[in-house]
Formats: sequence, structure tokens, C-alpha cells
Amino acid sequence: MRYTELAFTGPATFFKAPYRPLTEPWQAEVGLLGLPYDFAVGYRPGARFAPNALREASGRYAPGPEGWFDLETETYRLQGVHLVDAGDVDPAQLEYHETFRRITEAARALRGRVKLPVFVGGDHSVTYPVLRAYDDLEELHIVQLDAHLDFSDSRNATRFSNSSPFRRAVEDVPGLKQITVVGLRGLRTNPEAYQAAKNRGHTLITARTVRENLHGVLERLPKGQRVYISFDADVLDPSILPGTSSPEVEGLSYTQAMAVVRQTVTQNQLVGFDLVELAPNLDPGGLSALVGARLLAEVLACWAG
Amino acid sequence: MRYTELAFTGPATFFKAPYRPLTEPWQAEVGLLGLPYDFAVGYRPGARFAPNALREASGRYAPGPEGWFDLETETYRLQGVHLVDAGDVDPAQLEYHETFRRITEAARALRGRVKLPVFVGGDHSVTYPVLRAYDDLEELHIVQLDAHLDFSDSRNATRFSNSSPFRRAVEDVPGLKQITVVGLRGLRTNPEAYQAAKNRGHTLITARTVRENLHGVLERLPKGQRVYISFDADVLDPSILPGTSSPEVEGLSYTQAMAVVRQTVTQNQLVGFDLVELAPNLDPGGLSALVGARLLAEVLACWAG
Amino acid sequence: MRYTELAFTGPATFFKAPYRPLTEPWQAEVGLLGLPYDFAVGYRPGARFAPNALREASGRYAPGPEGWFDLETETYRLQGVHLVDAGDVDPAQLEYHETFRRITEAARALRGRVKLPVFVGGDHSVTYPVLRAYDDLEELHIVQLDAHLDFSDSRNATRFSNSSPFRRAVEDVPGLKQITVVGLRGLRTNPEAYQAAKNRGHTLITARTVRENLHGVLERLPKGQRVYISFDADVLDPSILPGTSSPEVEGLSYTQAMAVVRQTVTQNQLVGFDLVELAPNLDPGGLSALVGARLLAEVLACWAG
Amino acid sequence: MRYTELAFTGPATFFKAPYRPLTEPWQAEVGLLGLPYDFAVGYRPGARFAPNALREASGRYAPGPEGWFDLETETYRLQGVHLVDAGDVDPAQLEYHETFRRITEAARALRGRVKLPVFVGGDHSVTYPVLRAYDDLEELHIVQLDAHLDFSDSRNATRFSNSSPFRRAVEDVPGLKQITVVGLRGLRTNPEAYQAAKNRGHTLITARTVRENLHGVLERLPKGQRVYISFDADVLDPSILPGTSSPEVEGLSYTQAMAVVRQTVTQNQLVGFDLVELAPNLDPGGLSALVGARLLAEVLACWAG
Amino acid sequence: MRYTELAFTGPATFFKAPYRPLTEPWQAEVGLLGLPYDFAVGYRPGARFAPNALREASGRYAPGPEGWFDLETETYRLQGVHLVDAGDVDPAQLEYHETFRRITEAARALRGRVKLPVFVGGDHSVTYPVLRAYDDLEELHIVQLDAHLDFSDSRNATRFSNSSPFRRAVEDVPGLKQITVVGLRGLRTNPEAYQAAKNRGHTLITARTVRENLHGVLERLPKGQRVYISFDADVLDPSILPGTSSPEVEGLSYTQAMAVVRQTVTQNQLVGFDLVELAPNLDPGGLSALVGARLLAEVLACWAG
Amino acid sequence: MRYTELAFTGPATFFKAPYRPLTEPWQAEVGLLGLPYDFAVGYRPGARFAPNALREASGRYAPGPEGWFDLETETYRLQGVHLVDAGDVDPAQLEYHETFRRITEAARALRGRVKLPVFVGGDHSVTYPVLRAYDDLEELHIVQLDAHLDFSDSRNATRFSNSSPFRRAVEDVPGLKQITVVGLRGLRTNPEAYQAAKNRGHTLITARTVRENLHGVLERLPKGQRVYISFDADVLDPSILPGTSSPEVEGLSYTQAMAVVRQTVTQNQLVGFDLVELAPNLDPGGLSALVGARLLAEVLACWAG
Repeated sequence: MRYTELAFTGPATFFKAPYRPLTEPWQAEVGLLGLPYDFAVGYRPGARFAPNALREASGRYAPGPEGWFDLETETYRLQGVHLVDAGDVDPAQLEYHETFRRITEAARALRGRVKLPVFVGGDHSVTYPVLRAYDDLEELHIVQLDAHLDFSDSRNATRFSNSSPFRRAVEDVPGLKQITVVGLRGLRTNPEAYQAAKNRGHTLITARTVRENLHGVLERLPKGQRVYISFDADVLDPSILPGTSSPEVEGLSYTQAMAVVRQTVTQNQLVGFDLVELAPNLDPGGLSALVGARLLAEVLACWAG
Repeated sequence: MRYTELAFTGPATFFKAPYRPLTEPWQAEVGLLGLPYDFAVGYRPGARFAPNALREASGRYAPGPEGWFDLETETYRLQGVHLVDAGDVDPAQLEYHETFRRITEAARALRGRVKLPVFVGGDHSVTYPVLRAYDDLEELHIVQLDAHLDFSDSRNATRFSNSSPFRRAVEDVPGLKQITVVGLRGLRTNPEAYQAAKNRGHTLITARTVRENLHGVLERLPKGQRVYISFDADVLDPSILPGTSSPEVEGLSYTQAMAVVRQTVTQNQLVGFDLVELAPNLDPGGLSALVGARLLAEVLACWAG
Repeated sequence: MRYTELAFTGPATFFKAPYRPLTEPWQAEVGLLGLPYDFAVGYRPGARFAPNALREASGRYAPGPEGWFDLETETYRLQGVHLVDAGDVDPAQLEYHETFRRITEAARALRGRVKLPVFVGGDHSVTYPVLRAYDDLEELHIVQLDAHLDFSDSRNATRFSNSSPFRRAVEDVPGLKQITVVGLRGLRTNPEAYQAAKNRGHTLITARTVRENLHGVLERLPKGQRVYISFDADVLDPSILPGTSSPEVEGLSYTQAMAVVRQTVTQNQLVGFDLVELAPNLDPGGLSALVGARLLAEVLACWAG
Repeated sequence: MRYTELAFTGPATFFKAPYRPLTEPWQAEVGLLGLPYDFAVGYRPGARFAPNALREASGRYAPGPEGWFDLETETYRLQGVHLVDAGDVDPAQLEYHETFRRITEAARALRGRVKLPVFVGGDHSVTYPVLRAYDDLEELHIVQLDAHLDFSDSRNATRFSNSSPFRRAVEDVPGLKQITVVGLRGLRTNPEAYQAAKNRGHTLITARTVRENLHGVLERLPKGQRVYISFDADVLDPSILPGTSSPEVEGLSYTQAMAVVRQTVTQNQLVGFDLVELAPNLDPGGLSALVGARLLAEVLACWAG
Repeated sequence: MRYTELAFTGPATFFKAPYRPLTEPWQAEVGLLGLPYDFAVGYRPGARFAPNALREASGRYAPGPEGWFDLETETYRLQGVHLVDAGDVDPAQLEYHETFRRITEAARALRGRVKLPVFVGGDHSVTYPVLRAYDDLEELHIVQLDAHLDFSDSRNATRFSNSSPFRRAVEDVPGLKQITVVGLRGLRTNPEAYQAAKNRGHTLITARTVRENLHGVLERLPKGQRVYISFDADVLDPSILPGTSSPEVEGLSYTQAMAVVRQTVTQNQLVGFDLVELAPNLDPGGLSALVGARLLAEVLACWAG
Repeated sequence: MRYTELAFTGPATFFKAPYRPLTEPWQAEVGLLGLPYDFAVGYRPGARFAPNALREASGRYAPGPEGWFDLETETYRLQGVHLVDAGDVDPAQLEYHETFRRITEAARALRGRVKLPVFVGGDHSVTYPVLRAYDDLEELHIVQLDAHLDFSDSRNATRFSNSSPFRRAVEDVPGLKQITVVGLRGLRTNPEAYQAAKNRGHTLITARTVRENLHGVLERLPKGQRVYISFDADVLDPSILPGTSSPEVEGLSYTQAMAVVRQTVTQNQLVGFDLVELAPNLDPGGLSALVGARLLAEVLACWAG
């Protein structure tokens, strides 16, 4: 009695997967959790609307039981992988400590249910409470695709904005080892943050380096580790994803960004993934949400092998 | 672990009600069913996106167990009413006979589950297959709020467009008695449709009449009947709801339209309600979806008493 | 082989009328001429796009040979009236004297072809060269629906902006008698223009007066005269027509504005009509062009009787 | 060498007044201070962009030394009134206590410089720290034009959102006497807030009451008091001001709202005014900012007498 | 008396060519026919508006009698080529068999009038009835620029959607030989369609192959054949043409797509061209229509030699 | 008491520099002057809004006293450079001779105050009156980044449109030597203009040449000269800057355009820079203004060394 062929039928969940709140018991291979929080953005807000916008756009990529057929390899992708939409964490608005507490709690719960937890922001500040949920791991590596360092100790009188998630994380997550940042660019880098990242031995790779030597960049990615990938939408060139708070020209192409993600996933154990800083309201034509949904779909397919 | 205070957290369902597909067994007081079909629109499409847009906007009006507190009467509304989001009927795109078959089937199923079925279009053509699901009733009255008659035998080479739902319904639904249309206006009325409606004894009330004598209009509404209300978004003045295929100036105010709905609901037995022709893509500021969600909320509260 | 039922089929001409350039010989009852000139706007441009936008929107009101059936009077309107789209005058961009020369020349030509010439701007500056084409009339009255006087001698270093068309016209059109302005409002009136209009004996009627006593306003309109109506889109309340350079709150409702137009047309000989200052680009939902097309349609029907 | 006739020339300041930061010494009759803070909005953000949008739009109403000529009274308004743009308070983003401290400090400074301080939000939460700057007054009355009470003790885990400014203010501002709220409506009133306001003796006037008896409403306004007016943009009907986080149908017309403001200003001593909750990004046609600028202009003119 | 230098003067026809309906007798070198039909789109509608949007945008490329001067080759292009706008086929809305009958009939008529018929969609389903008008040819080759195969036997309960035009065409057009598809990509290929295309011996070239070896791709295009080119707007990267129902990242650059078109035109006999799936409403900045008009212009110039 | 960390606080001036009108005495290293004039655009207007839009967007790049830290070179840029916002020249609307007189006068004044005058248009016609302010130089070279020649003697009946600034400049500026144009493309070049530029010995470099051999292009730029750079926004590919009147596909990447600018600045003495033809209203997502502000920032940093 229900039919699922058209992309736009609802209610919209991630990839038309069943919605199962974390208050109920369930297990799955992949769980997607929305984090509609953008109160930590210092410029153009709107990422709070991303989880629902990505749910709607992802209807185009609902895999169905047979998965997708891949033209290039003539194989099926995502076949039989069990996905669940775990809903959203409700932010406590101004009270960021409480919001972050809720996020950490939900992320821990999600980790207990699925092999691959996927977090859909929200602004980049949410990565900090998400990473706190990984404090039981002895070793955790991060690959961050981002135009910006997001490693400031403080900005604009606060230590918890979307400029600081990784700075806070290295303080609170004992197993957090190497952070590899790919796609850096822009006129204004926080020098204190830059120095701190250098001092801690982070691998910092600019977008220019990606353009000039993608192969070399792929070589510098972690291998054989437990890796969490944090994908900031602004790592992509704004021509392909304009809907983000702080777009920066000279970004990565979709192909380049996916090469970094694919290489990372293939040669490591992926323990988590987030997509943040996508603001659908800043792209009235709707392309950004479609690109974001496509990206999530491809990450899942890549992870499922 | 989950919090539901903010309007925009997802996955979006109608009024944050649980989603229960019609393939599962359940009973509730109110069920809302999306009909994302706008292939019968002859002008500006987009009503296919209305069910999901209204789900998102209706997050503002999620009642919670205690309902809403009404400032004017100092009472609680919708307290304890059990709502279900029954999902969408998936249209068969070009094959309208098949789409209409699916809609009738789903509408029948919904009627069997709930006291008040609410249908969220989609263009106005969907009202015809919905009404077919009421063919067991001995008597059914319709109150249609609409700028247009929608009673054409044929338009533009088809008999099933959004100009003809009530013409088809009177042919196929034996118990269908009086149709009362409120809000008519515009330069171009189909004279054949007008004559046919007059011949069948329909009550035709123009928007001008509503403006000049709302009280008299309320007097002419059915009383003590089983009534189905079909609410075409274009009955409202486009200043308050611009997101519709064929806006017509000099429309009803929200207050006037709600007066007609309220009076109808109060003095009859409401057996169904639809909201159609809302095209969210034609209102980039988002007001239309918010007004539509508010309207649905108020209808529910009015019905629940 | 060609079908004309759907509103959006092209090429778009005014009301799907045949396009006949003024370089060819023809006669008709009504001719519509586009004046896509907005270089005289001092604030938000875009009226240059109005003629084509109104052509597209007017497809909804293509009368066909039988005209439209009017629900309220149960009669047909515009039946058999012969309309022609006379194309656009190509502006000479910066060289306004040349543009105005072309407009006057085209307006004279159009007057020689049709009973009712209709001019579709463009900004309000075009009314001046249009009125120059009426310099053969011994007596000409003007009814101007407008939020602003547009009677400035000079503004911002120029005497030919959209603030001055009527000031220039009274200098150059010898038969121009009374000017009746309806709908005035706004914080900033040019005192010199106001005094000059008072001195010349113009009838100045504010929007507040229309709201408070529409009947009295209708009494003050000219009777038994040759009248040219100049309709500035900003006379309407911006809630119903937001697409205009300089919207002013507290405007006329569509009903009020049409009452003024209808009364004027009924009790006088209409020798010309213009619709100006509609900027479709300032209304992304498209309502303004639809309202403008509806207004033109109703003026034609009203004139045809 | 500089010319100021066109509305859109920059840099944009409020009414093209000189920008004088509060760090410098100066005195004026009116000072306008921007409060670009919307981190306390629980729904659709964007009010952070209002101060600059209103600066741009207010270029249309730059009075010049001679003021504006008023058509209706044939007098000049705002003639010779000395205005200053005092700039913006820079918010501390997430750290609302610090933001509020800065706002209170700036509001105190502004009060020391001008006869009429005008505050341009920002969301409604900013009214709380502004009112703290009036804690030296023995008696202060408030007239709040608003669709919502904004008197919640707590909402969504925080006590400082845009739902609570007046609740916090009555706790911290000892001289704060009567609060008169005009324009209340909407389905969801916080019952605890409603009861608390009733208990404290607030005057609560619904939008329906305004529609039904404006004269009676004007009678209930304070007289002969020191009054602060807080104007929430959502008191207006969304047809005229759609750019606001939480629009509510059945709002006040511009004329009704200005009648309330004018009466309040005329019969009291106005000690402050704020305009909040205008989100220009939610109105792509730009009307909302123009209406907001017009409103500010009219308040100034009304105050100046 | 009429001037044609500015791009935006109307009425808009393709390249400001004369409009000559197919009901009248005429001959020309090139005829452009609009097919404003998008009822077969399963995702985001709007291509019905493309013919008129492309007429407006193509005003920028009106060649005039002398054609355009080409900077690179220092020669004139399109000099003296006689173009005609043949108008639109009016769709029968829901009744696709009737719509397709009209399209085939009109396409046959156009082929009888011109050397190069150009079809402007509409969604991709229209290519099927267009190709039926070529059933007299003994041999017909197709070059399809497209992100998707569009060779499904059935999708979503219909065999006539925009996913199936070429599947239907190979059934009904006896002379249809090789189909070469360039630009394929995306996650979800219909495996049945893929296998059927392989079995029939189609040449399938991915976008990745174009990026990696454009020269090799050009080698694989047909030579010395009668060729029909079907250009789906989504073959282009969405950064350059975002206004399309189903954008896919990693698309062809304009330069790459034109290289394929140019090579095809140069070494074959072009018997028809269509541009489909451009949805102007999905690109509020208007770039997509401008790119589409430019593309059509370049195809004409390329064909004219 | 005032804080300047957030990008969107106002009043918006270029890079949050102090506003100092040219009527006051001051000296600085860099002065930015707005020229909000777009009455010479023959297609899509809106560049009149660019100066204020760029002021708002440039808040993201406010350097502060310490300048920006550059990640790639690990140095500080723009450290201690004294910037001033010199305001806008108020255009005389239709009276272009007067507007141009004002622009020349202001440009002369600015040259007397600063080392590097930066002009922010406005359409490209403004470059002519700006260049007149350099008529005291014995030798002046121009590097023009542009999709179009802008060297027409006349277009559409005027000699002063945005197609002619350099033609007029070579007539009136005696020291004007070589003009190097980079980025040419598009279907329609004015042959008379092309021949005139060739005859005068201009260096004309197409966008294709830049793509094929950027190094060779950099070799052809002037060396050791006094150079004025005129940057037309349409030189960039519209995927990265869609907000411009006449976008042309196959444009320069940001990286390519900056390479040309950087090389020019490095090996010459930069005496002036303009950015023109950016129309923010044509890019509702706001990317174009952000890219324009970034470009200006980078030019300043590059010039400061």
C-alpha cells in the first residue's frame, strides 16, 4: 500500500530509513543522528536546518534492499546494509553546556547501537561533544576536511564556538592522536591556533597542495588506524556548495574531496563521520543539500565496501 | 534522551506525531495522510512538496500531551488528542488512474483507522480519489473553500485535472449531496461548469459576498450533516498565502476563512478535511507553509472541541 | 496544430494576442505597447523587465474569441474584442531625450491604430513622452493612481526622472487640464511639487481619504471627459504588490483601486492607460506580475463594457 | 563634493546620520544603537542582520536639515532634529551573559548622551539588558507591541531566550511598573507566563481586540508616564512584514500599530524605543526592512512633534 | 520605428527571430520549437517554463543580419542565416499520449520546413515523440549528452517518464541505429536499463572518461552519419547550470560539452537538436537560462559553419 | 565599549575602516571610494548596490591593527596599513555628464589623499571618469580583466554606456598608453571595437589563452610601469561569481585572475584599482559579494607587500 519510488515522498528520513529514536532499543549497521545546532556560528546562521534538509534531499538516494547499481564497476553498492535514522538531538539553545551534554550522551548511545555512527550538523562546534563520546578509545585519529583550522583557543569571547571544536577535543579526549586537516585556505588564519596545531604535530594540508599534488596528499593520510572523519561543507569549492556560512574560494572539487574520504575509509577503520556547516537557507536553488546528501550516500557506500 | 521543544528538530512529521504507515495496524483519533501529487496542475507546479513542507512547519504547533493553552478562552486545546502521521501515498507520476487508485485505497484504509482523516495535497485533483473512499456513506455534504469552481467537465483535453475533481466526484460518489463553495472570484469562470453546478443546485458564494456579509454566509452553511471540507489554499488572499499555483486577488482573510471552517465543524459531523494547492516553492520566505500548518492545527483544535 | 489552453505556452505576448509591430499597417480595438525603460528610477531598478513579465503572466487571462464568463453578472466579458501586442519601444539607454522621442513617436502611431492604447512601463518617467503624443487634443484629463505626486520640477540634478513626468507634461501638452491624483501617502512629499500642484488646482486625494470615504472619492473623479489613466503600481498596498521600486505601506486595496478605475472608465471616454513601476525582479514569488496582468485584463474588460 | 539625494549611497547609517561611536564624547537629541544579536531565537534566525539592513533601507528616509514635508498636515517633520548613529554592540556570541553586560553598558552610555535612545535588534532577548539600563528610574512603564507575551520564566532549558525578556526585566528593574501588551494572538501561549502576567496586573490586549475596538485600546494605554516602547516586528500582520522568525496571521495593520505608538508617545514621556525580531533574510523582496525603516522614521517624527 | 539593440525588449522570441506558427506556410534554415512539457519529471518540476525563459535569455544573442563577429577566428558567425521561432506545442497536460501525438505531429511539420529543427524542452520525455517524427529515415544516429541513461523500460509504474525516452524510441523508430551517451555519472543507475543498452551495443561514456581523455572520447563519436543530438542540461556540472531537476556533481564543463557537440556537428549531418531538462525556476539568479541560450546560439553557429 | 570581532556588526564600511568623506582633510595609505552608478548598464541592473554590499561583506576581512596571518607564508599581511572608506559619489541619475564630472572630481581628490585609490563600482562606465582623474600622468598603462572589450565607439545610440569606457578614455587621457585586456570571450564581439583596439596596439588575451598558457600570459603583462587595474567581475567564471549583469561561461578561475593581478602589482607601480559590474541582487545566496570582498582584500594585501 505504500510505494517508495519517488524521491520526495515523506515523512523524510535519512535515505528513507526507518526512524528509531535512541530511547528505544535497536541495533543496525549505520545510524544517522541529526544535530540541528548552529548557535555557535559567528557569521551566517542556518545549519540548524541541515538535518531536515538532508533528510529531504537524501530521498533521491534511498538505496532500497538491492542497493544501487554502480555503472563504473558494474556492481551493487550498499546492498542489504541496514540503516537507521536515529532522529535529532534537541539543542538547549543558548545553554551550550547542556546542549553539548545531550549531544555527547546521544553520541555514546549511538556508538553502542551501530557499526558506523554518522552525525549530521549543525555547525562545527558539535564535533567537540561528539568526540567526547569517543573518550574510551585508546587511540583515535581524525581526518578533518575543512577550509579552516577550527583550532582556536578562544574567539569573540567564547571558547566553544565553531572555531574551537578540535582545541576543546584535544583537551578532553585522552586517546585523540593525530589530526590531519585537508583543504586549508583563506586570508585569515588565527596565528595562535596555527602555532598550537603545529606544536601538537598536526598534519596541515592546504587546498593549494591538494590541487597541485593530490597523490602526495593521499600518501599523507593515516593508515591502519581508528579514524573519525569530520567533513566541513566549506572544504568544497563554493561553486559546488554555496550554502555554507563562510564560503572560501579556491576550494576542493567534489572529486578531490571524495578521493581524500575514500582513501581514508579504505585504509583505516572508520569509527565515525560528521557532515557540518551546511546551511540550506543560503542556497535557494537547493543544490547544496543535494550535494550533501550525495556525499553522505557515497560515504556509506564507500564504507560498506 | 530526546527533547522536543524546538520547532525544527526532525525527522519532521505532522505536528511531531508518530509516523505509522498504513501497512501496519493502528488506531487513532486523527490521522494525517500526505498526497504529494501535482501532475494535474495546469499552471505553476510545486504542490508535490507541500506534505513535507507542512510537516516541517507544523513542528511549531506540536501540541505535546497537554495541548496548547488558548489565551482568549483560558482553556487548553487538543489536550490528549492522539494524532498519527500516516505517511504519503506515492504517486504513479504520469499514470493518474493508478495514482488515483492508490489514493482511494489509502483514504479508505485511513477512514477505518481514525475518527478524523486529514488529507494534505497535492493539487486539487486529489480530492476526487479521496472522495471515492466515502462511497459507502448514504449522505455526504461538501464545503469547499476555493477561489475556483473546480467543476469543469474537461479542460485542456483532460477530464482529471485540478479543474474537475468535484465533477468527477458527483459522478462516482452516490451519497454526495450538496456542495457549498465559498470564496469564488476571478475573471475566468468556465461557463459550462458554472451552469452544471447551478443545475445541480450547488450553493455558490463569492468572496465578495463573504466580505460584504460574513454572517449571512455562515447562515447558508450545512447544518447537522456529515461534511467533508476541502480547503484550497487559493481561497485565502495571496497577501497572506502567496505560495499557490493560481493566486487570485481579493481573497478571504484568514479570519474569514476560519470562521467558515469553524462554523461548519461546529454544527456538523466532520468526516474528512483536505488542504490542497499549497506550493511552498512559490514562497521563498516560507510564510505559506507556516500559514498552512497553523490552519491545520486550528482545524484539529476546532474539531476536538 | 497549435493549442492555446495552457497559460505558459509561448512566445508570450500580451494576452496571447498577435504581435504586430508598428512598422506594419494594421488596425485594432486595443493595442498594448511595452516601454521597458527604467533608467529614470532613483531607487530599485527592474521595471525594464515588466513588459515581458506581464506578457508571460497575461497568458493566464488570454480571452479567446468568446471572452471570459463573469460569474457575478453571468455575462461574457471582452467577447470579440480585437487585441494586438504592438511590441516594445527600444530605449536608447542613457540618452533619455532620444528614448523619449521614440516613445512619443510610437505612442502617436499607436493612437492612430487603435481605440484604446495601453502602455506598459517601465518606470513612471515614460508617462511624460506618452502624454506628448496627446498634444493634439483640446482637452485631456488625467486620473493618476499613485502613492507619490511625481510632480517635482527637479530631483537629484535631473528634470526627467520618474519624479517629474506630470510636471513636464503640463509644460508640453497644451490641452492637459485637470490632474486627479488618488492614493497619495508616505513621509516625504516634495513641498515645491505639492505647492505647484495645489496652485495649478490639481485634485489631491490621499490613501487615507480613500480608506475613510471611498464613495466621496468616486464623486470627485472627472465626468464626461477625455481621460488618460496612469496607474503606478505603488498605489496598491505592498502586501498585494510588493514588486515595485518604492513600496509604501497603507496603500489601496485592489478592490479600492479598481473602483476608482472602473468609475473613471464608466463615466468618461478613456483615451489611454498606462501601468508603470512594476518591478518583477523584486518579487521572487511572481505574485506582482500576476496581479498586474489581472489589472490590465480587468481594465480592458471594463472599457469594452 | 558629496551629494546625498539618492537613497542607496553609502556607507549606510541610520537615516544617513553621522556615525559616532560611544567611545567618543558627543550629545544629540536622538541616538540609534544596533544590537545585532539573534542567538536567543529558537526558530528562524536572521535578526542579527537587521541593524545593517535597516541602515540601508533608512537611506530612503534621510531627513536632511529641513526634515520631511507632510502632505496631510502641510507641515515639516523632524526639522532640525539632531540624529546620531551610535553603531552596534558587538555580541559575545554564545556567551550571553557577557553580551547582555555589553548591551546594558552601551544602553546606559546612550541614555547619557541623548534625549531619545532607539535600540535596533536583534531578537527580543535584547530588551532585557536594555531595560537594565533604566534601573535608576523610580517609575517606568512599558508598552509592548507583540504577538507573543515573551514573559516565560524558562523555555527550552534556558531563562534568557527571546521568550523571557520581560520576565527577567521585572526581576531586575526595580522601577518597572505596568506592562501593557498589545497585539497578542497565536495558538500557543505559555500558561505559566500568562498566569504570571495576569498576577502581576499586566494589561493584555489581543489583536482581535484591536481589530474590534481600536478606540477602546487607545484608552487603555498609559498616560502621563515615563514609557519605554518595545516593538516586536511580529505584531504586524505578516502580509506587510513577512521577515520575522515566527510570523502569526491575523496581526495588526500598520495603521493600527502606529495608532498605538502615536497615542503612547503623545500622552507620555518616551524614554526609549526598540524595534526587534525583524529578520531581513526571510524576506527576499526587501519589503520588511523598508517597512521597519519607515516605522522608525515615523516614531522619530512622532516623538519630535 | 522599432529598435532591437537591447537584449530585454519584447515580445521575446528565440534570438528575436520572427514567430511563425506551424499552421502557416513558411520555409527557413533553422526553426526552433518549444515543448513546454514537464509532467513526466519525477523530481523537481519547472522545465515547462524553459521555452519562454530561453526566449527571454536568447535576446542577448540575437544575431541580426550580419551575425556575430568571432574574436578568436576574426570571422562572422550565423551571417544571413534565416531563423524562425515556430512557437510552442501546447501540452495536453495529464494526457501524455495526446501530448506526444501533438509533439510528433509538430516535429514532422517542422522537419518539412527547415534544414535544422531545434527542439526546446521540457523534460527529457519529449525526445521520444520528437524522434518518432524521424521514422522515415533509414539510418539515424543519436548523440546524447546526459548524466543519466534515460533508457529504463519502466520507472515508478510508468513507461513514458523522462527516464525512458530512448527505450521507447528504439522500439518505434526503425532506422534508429547507434546511441552514443556522453557524460554518464551518478550513484544510481538502473541495472536493467544499463544491461539493455549494453546488449543493444550503445556507446556509453562516463563523465570521468571525458575528464580523463576528452580526445579519446571525440574519437568515439559517429562520423559521416545523420545525427540527432539530445542535450540534457544535467550533463553540465551544476556549478555552471544549477537549474535542473536532478543535478549531479562531477559533470562536464561547458568547454567539454561543446567540444563533443562541435565534433559531432562537424563530422556528421545534423538532422535535429534538442535541449531539455533546464528548469529556470530552480536558479533564481538566472544563470541557467543564460547558459542554455548561449549553448543554443553556439550550436546554431557551429552548424551554420 | 565597542567590540569588532564579528563580521556583521555595523555600520558597514569597507573592511571596517573609518569613514572619512572627501570634504574633510585626511591622508591615508589606501582609500576606497564607492561609485554606485549602474544607469549605463544595458542589460541586468543592480551594480548600484555593490558598494554597500561589499562594505557589508568586507566585514569578514577587517584586518585589525595586526593584519591577517597568512598560513602559506607564515607571515602577517596588511599589518598596520591605514585604510579609509571615503564614502560614495552620489550619482546624478539620468544626467551622466554631471555624474561623470562628480566622479572625476572625487577621484582626483582621492588621488591627492592616498597612495592607492580603490574604486568600487558601479558598472564599467565609471572607469572612464575615473581615468580622467589621471590625466596629469605622462604615462599610464591599463590592465583590464574583463570578458568583454568595452571599447565600442557607440552602442545602442549612446557613446557613454558600459561598453565604451576605454574608448572614451583613450580620447581624453593623454598619457594613456598600452591597454592589456585579459579574459576575453563570448559570442558577440563588436567588430569595430575589436579593429580599433587592434589598430591602437592593445594586447588582447582571451580566456582560452589563459586556460591554455597562464605562464605565457603573465609574461605579456606590463613591467615597470604605472599601472591602473580595472577588474570587471564578469572576467571570473559565473560559477564562482554569478552576480553580474552579463555572465559569460568559460571564465577565469579565481586563482587565474589573482595570478594576473598579483603579477601586475608586483612588477609595476599600482596607481589605481577598480572593481566593477558586481550586481549583488543577482546572487540571492550572497556568494558574489563575499568573493568580491575577498578579492579587494587580497589586492590590498598584495599591494602592501
